[in-house]
Amino acid sequence: MKQYRAYCFDLDGTVYRGTEGIDSAIRFIHKLQQNKIDYFLVTNNSSKTPVQLQTTLANFGLDVPEERIYSSALATAKYVNQHYREAKIHVIGSDGLFHALQKEGFETDKEELNPEVVVMGIDRTIDYMKLAKACVAVQNGAQLVGTNEDIKFPSELGFLPGNGSFVRLVANVAAVEPVFVGKPSPVMLQVIQDEYGYHKDEMVMIGDNYDTDILCGIHFGCDTIHVNTGVTSTEQVLQKPLQPTYCVEDLDEIS
Amino acid sequence: MKQYRAYCFDLDGTVYRGTEGIDSAIRFIHKLQQNKIDYFLVTNNSSKTPVQLQTTLANFGLDVPEERIYSSALATAKYVNQHYREAKIHVIGSDGLFHALQKEGFETDKEELNPEVVVMGIDRTIDYMKLAKACVAVQNGAQLVGTNEDIKFPSELGFLPGNGSFVRLVANVAAVEPVFVGKPSPVMLQVIQDEYGYHKDEMVMIGDNYDTDILCGIHFGCDTIHVNTGVTSTEQVLQKPLQPTYCVEDLDEIS
Repeated sequence: MKQYRAYCFDLDGTVYRGTEGIDSAIRFIHKLQQNKIDYFLVTNNSSKTPVQLQTTLANFGLDVPEERIYSSALATAKYVNQHYREAKIHVIGSDGLFHALQKEGFETDKEELNPEVVVMGIDRTIDYMKLAKACVAVQNGAQLVGTNEDIKFPSELGFLPGNGSFVRLVANVAAVEPVFVGKPSPVMLQVIQDEYGYHKDEMVMIGDNYDTDILCGIHFGCDTIHVNTGVTSTEQVLQKPLQPTYCVEDLDEIS
Repeated sequence: MKQYRAYCFDLDGTVYRGTEGIDSAIRFIHKLQQNKIDYFLVTNNSSKTPVQLQTTLANFGLDVPEERIYSSALATAKYVNQHYREAKIHVIGSDGLFHALQKEGFETDKEELNPEVVVMGIDRTIDYMKLAKACVAVQNGAQLVGTNEDIKFPSELGFLPGNGSFVRLVANVAAVEPVFVGKPSPVMLQVIQDEYGYHKDEMVMIGDNYDTDILCGIHFGCDTIHVNTGVTSTEQVLQKPLQPTYCVEDLDEIS
């Protein structure tokens, strides 16, 4: 297999599954670290701050500098700052998103009556009142921005509702089309390219989820590697009209 | 306009909007009462008991006997009893639905770990945990039954999320098709016909929402009157392939 200058990994389903590490991926990243090859962790998870994600990765034996972690929360905060500088925002989300927006200079603790942007990330305490407020704000003209459009995510109990479920609910009630920043939007890969100056053909996106990870790489225009360790099975991937560059069982196949 | 023996009204968006009465509709019902013409209130609202709905109507100056009120909560409880007699059920909803299910002999206060049916009606205290539990129960095989499929309903503040929004969320996460009992299903009009013995051409269904009220009448096979006082605008109605019998701005037009 071709060697790349920058390996971009999805996290959940690719590097770990819930509380379990995926050994082949961890071995692969260790090898990149030993060989001083660049790698990035590109996750739609908006609930955790980079430091919290660092701790999660440390639990699987991965020592990763903060600046190698790109979450949909960070990308969303940058997106909102670029497109709606100094706007009044209303946020539904968790630590990761609040932290990222504050870092970009937004006030997130005020109850804005007429926000210009409603930003939504996964919030395990979301309730009717929060959704109703978001619906009303969007009907009054606020732009609806979601960190990611995942309808569901796997857990030990089965699939649980993902952020995309709630953003779609608000969008349907308010009759608008939301903007989603996370994968499959190419925004996070674009930011990595801009910051490090790679050519697209020097980058590869690696992930288990066809609809987010693989399409993100395809939309961006770099090579992609599908791993059969999470949401989308290899069988399902082979039926898609747009194919990833490589399909592997796990990353031991290409070490 | 043709005179009917039985006028069936939707409530929210037709007789009132949130806490505001719609004067033209209230005048119209007063006139029916004076002329001793039958009328019924046929609502997808599952949150209130018939007595609570009576109180709401009294606030708008309408004195309506309890037996003239048909709610999706009452219809759903009957449906679940017919199809899943003595089943273990898990309920998300408000007073109206709990009350109706208890009347049909169901236990609604126990936390069922493996319910056979998940019944969902509007719940203004719905939250992530309730939705997650419903998603898991349905993935484990429970049938998903919704009182009504309204995605949204009008309020003074704008559209707010309706029960259909939450049932669809659970259905999408669990990858199932739900059953809906309220309008546009013709069940409630069928019950009125059965109880009073009208011919279908003696009945008319009046409402603001094309997708629930008007389609309910069309599915049932009676005449329909669309009023431009709520969810669906006349402009939107005119683009539908199946047209209501009449389209009016409000009920003053036909008094």
